[in-house]
Amino acid sequence: MSNNSFASRFQELKNIFQEITHLRGIRRLLDWDQETFMPQKGGQNRAEQTALLASLIHEKMTSSRTGELIEELFEQVEPKGPEKDEFVCLREWKRLFDRQKKLPASLVQELSRQAVLAHRAWAQARKEADLSIFLPFLQRLVELSRKKADCLGFDSSPYDALLDEYEPGATTVEIEELFLELVPALKTLLSRVQGAFSSRQNGLSGKFPIGAQKVLAKLAVDRMGYDLRAGRIDTVLHPFSTKIGPGDCRITTRWNEQDFTEAFFGVLHEAGHAIYSQNLPQEHYGTPLGESVSLGIHESQSRFWENIIGRSRPFWKYFLPISRGIFPGELTDMDLDDFLRIINRVKASFIRVEADEVTYNLHVYLRFVVERELIEGKLSPKDIPERWNGLFKDLFSLDVPNDALGCLQDVHWSGASFGYFPTYTLGNIYAAMFLKAIRRDVDQMESLIERGEFSLLSDWLKKNIHCHGQRYRAKELVEKVTGERPSALPLIEYLKGKYTGLEAGE
Amino acid sequence: MSNNSFASRFQELKNIFQEITHLRGIRRLLDWDQETFMPQKGGQNRAEQTALLASLIHEKMTSSRTGELIEELFEQVEPKGPEKDEFVCLREWKRLFDRQKKLPASLVQELSRQAVLAHRAWAQARKEADLSIFLPFLQRLVELSRKKADCLGFDSSPYDALLDEYEPGATTVEIEELFLELVPALKTLLSRVQGAFSSRQNGLSGKFPIGAQKVLAKLAVDRMGYDLRAGRIDTVLHPFSTKIGPGDCRITTRWNEQDFTEAFFGVLHEAGHAIYSQNLPQEHYGTPLGESVSLGIHESQSRFWENIIGRSRPFWKYFLPISRGIFPGELTDMDLDDFLRIINRVKASFIRVEADEVTYNLHVYLRFVVERELIEGKLSPKDIPERWNGLFKDLFSLDVPNDALGCLQDVHWSGASFGYFPTYTLGNIYAAMFLKAIRRDVDQMESLIERGEFSLLSDWLKKNIHCHGQRYRAKELVEKVTGERPSALPLIEYLKGKYTGLEAGE
Repeated sequence: MSNNSFASRFQELKNIFQEITHLRGIRRLLDWDQETFMPQKGGQNRAEQTALLASLIHEKMTSSRTGELIEELFEQVEPKGPEKDEFVCLREWKRLFDRQKKLPASLVQELSRQAVLAHRAWAQARKEADLSIFLPFLQRLVELSRKKADCLGFDSSPYDALLDEYEPGATTVEIEELFLELVPALKTLLSRVQGAFSSRQNGLSGKFPIGAQKVLAKLAVDRMGYDLRAGRIDTVLHPFSTKIGPGDCRITTRWNEQDFTEAFFGVLHEAGHAIYSQNLPQEHYGTPLGESVSLGIHESQSRFWENIIGRSRPFWKYFLPISRGIFPGELTDMDLDDFLRIINRVKASFIRVEADEVTYNLHVYLRFVVERELIEGKLSPKDIPERWNGLFKDLFSLDVPNDALGCLQDVHWSGASFGYFPTYTLGNIYAAMFLKAIRRDVDQMESLIERGEFSLLSDWLKKNIHCHGQRYRAKELVEKVTGERPSALPLIEYLKGKYTGLEAGE
Repeated sequence: MSNNSFASRFQELKNIFQEITHLRGIRRLLDWDQETFMPQKGGQNRAEQTALLASLIHEKMTSSRTGELIEELFEQVEPKGPEKDEFVCLREWKRLFDRQKKLPASLVQELSRQAVLAHRAWAQARKEADLSIFLPFLQRLVELSRKKADCLGFDSSPYDALLDEYEPGATTVEIEELFLELVPALKTLLSRVQGAFSSRQNGLSGKFPIGAQKVLAKLAVDRMGYDLRAGRIDTVLHPFSTKIGPGDCRITTRWNEQDFTEAFFGVLHEAGHAIYSQNLPQEHYGTPLGESVSLGIHESQSRFWENIIGRSRPFWKYFLPISRGIFPGELTDMDLDDFLRIINRVKASFIRVEADEVTYNLHVYLRFVVERELIEGKLSPKDIPERWNGLFKDLFSLDVPNDALGCLQDVHWSGASFGYFPTYTLGNIYAAMFLKAIRRDVDQMESLIERGEFSLLSDWLKKNIHCHGQRYRAKELVEKVTGERPSALPLIEYLKGKYTGLEAGE
């Protein structure tokens, strides 16, 4: 009877979260449509539709019945370990519910209201390279985010409380330790390889018809295991990948006719995310067992395909001849070594999203330092440029000419997404750890890739990462799969090995 | 105080219906996506998303609070006339709520469940031209629809109760009277003009690139007043128009490279619907004052542009030279008279959706007779072919070779949409009445159209039809605008005049 009653109450709770998940999927379709096909004048109506969905989701998430069921069932579920499906669900639902319960509705509303205003001000400020336009909004968002951290509670740093939203269980100290391992190695590597390989420091400049680029991109993602019958590729200004639901995980990109590699690597990146989404267990859709672990793990999937596989020699041994066929005449004089050096060129530059594999994590580190200090109250928003530019000079030996190329370049802070940036570096770190583990598990990985056979990679990722949903937290999952605790060493080794290879032409 | 309280309770009710309207708009976006861009494997997820939205809408529509507010406020609102905004809203909300209250949830669910099964069986039956596959499902749907009519209640015919869903306030007897006026005149006209004008009875057969067709279609709808910044044109199998919300009314079509007129008239038709949707008062979106009157009035808008304007001599005086420019070489030898005779060719044929202006309403009449007899219990579903084919012989002097070309051709009955068909003919009747009124109100209508100046037409429709939302029921609106009660005579006059003109080449 008591067991029966547990089952039926669990089912009731599961139904609530399945509805919430469907409403979120619907909302993502609305967002996707807004970025792809929505008519220009549809914006106001779309905002109201989206707000309605948000309030329906909020209502279901915060209902007293939801809370009651979570409390009771979490108490009763046994064993309390990741091997028990119901426990995993209740652990994650409780985490979401508890976080939410701690935040006063007024604070949540104020943050969301200020973020809308701040976003507009930020766009203007970036356009005019004038921080003063954005500063009052940023001050308010920092203040509200500090309040949010106080409400959520934390052990050592308020930044922990914010980080936890994007990377459950991660701490500021752990992130700091990873950076302390990584950053000096990257600085050394940068001074060694910057501008070392190629006179063509600006990428390709040919004529690559977009239709042909689409053919190549679809071929590549199909080989990677992205199911195009359960997805599609559309054109947008700011590329993203989105899960509408099982059987419907879409990606987007932006095409550059002069250099096909821009969209190509973008598509690989988004397809990495979308393959993860497609491979999450469908039978668990609507529960944490059908959800991705964290932003860091999600990013590890995109970076794995975009960089570790997509910018590797074996990958282009297979794809360069195909690309020559698809773009007749454009790549005739390009040999594999030249091509690899172009797509792996390293250069200190001001903009994060244009950065290479060596400098990318230095950009992230800088943001981590700055936003942590903001949230810990050690840095005032008005002093950001000084701090940013000083750190930049130290990391890249360059002077930031203006704030548009400095602290105003990223959208994140205008949405109060403090704690998001480190997940990019976690993604790169995890991806390199997974590469090491795959090399251990899969014989002759390189020679399979050279032949265009990627299914052993996709299968490994599906079997070791995707199939678990949120059964394990990121750190646990990484340790379970690789046998090692999160560490930047595999990333450092991978990068050193890669650039030694490029220097030697092997 | 009492007035204040009326206002605040009215606002509460209005909020409920605005949310319902937004949920419906969201659902239409999901349907649009399903027909246009959804990946093949997204169907199951989409079905669940749609079902969730339907249940949320149903919950809000049927909540006891909704009912309470409607009852109380309807009682109190004064004056009870179309000049009072709140009365119009309450009248329509009450109508919806009362209809719903009368229908047991079990019957609604059973109808919707059976319709899903029936639709599948119908598609198979049509493919194989074998009614027996569909018959048991159709029997069940007729039986359930008769129950539905009993629950809803009616004065003289159960068909009234079903008709009222699509054309509020219309009665079986009125529809019958209109057909009794119309059908003999159409039969006479058909025997006079069938095959009379042209040897080219199969339309155009050239090479009209789809890109160029899109240019022409967009030019035409833009002239008609369809705002493409608040809409778009996509490609589907079964064309439709849909309102996602204010500022977002989309149309779809199907292209035929051999004959540009197919898609062109299809686009004009859907744009007629969409212009109505775009012109409904945005400030009233979410209330009956922002909704279309009825299917008949909606269809009058599409038929007006597709046929009355779109197949007229002045329209092509303007558009034929443009079309020659857009499709170089394809229309060089085509003079205006030939072209008008081709696009207005009349021929008795088996399929309603391919029918011309003369025969179209005969097809509808046949369906009206059959479905009325089904719902009145005078015809058993198994006897449909005999009845259908007999009527067809009488109307068209043709023998129906099989049920795929006969009683299985339309999707409507598989969705239990009994009572829908007559709204097509009402649309044609109303459109001709509006034409007569416009000729009365607008000087030199023809010569404006010849110059591509359609804004006086759009303005007239907006000012006389669109701006009212549901303030007036269809019959009232028609009488208010035209000064006449609904009558088939203007349609008969229009058709006679048109074919006399075509015969004379003027």
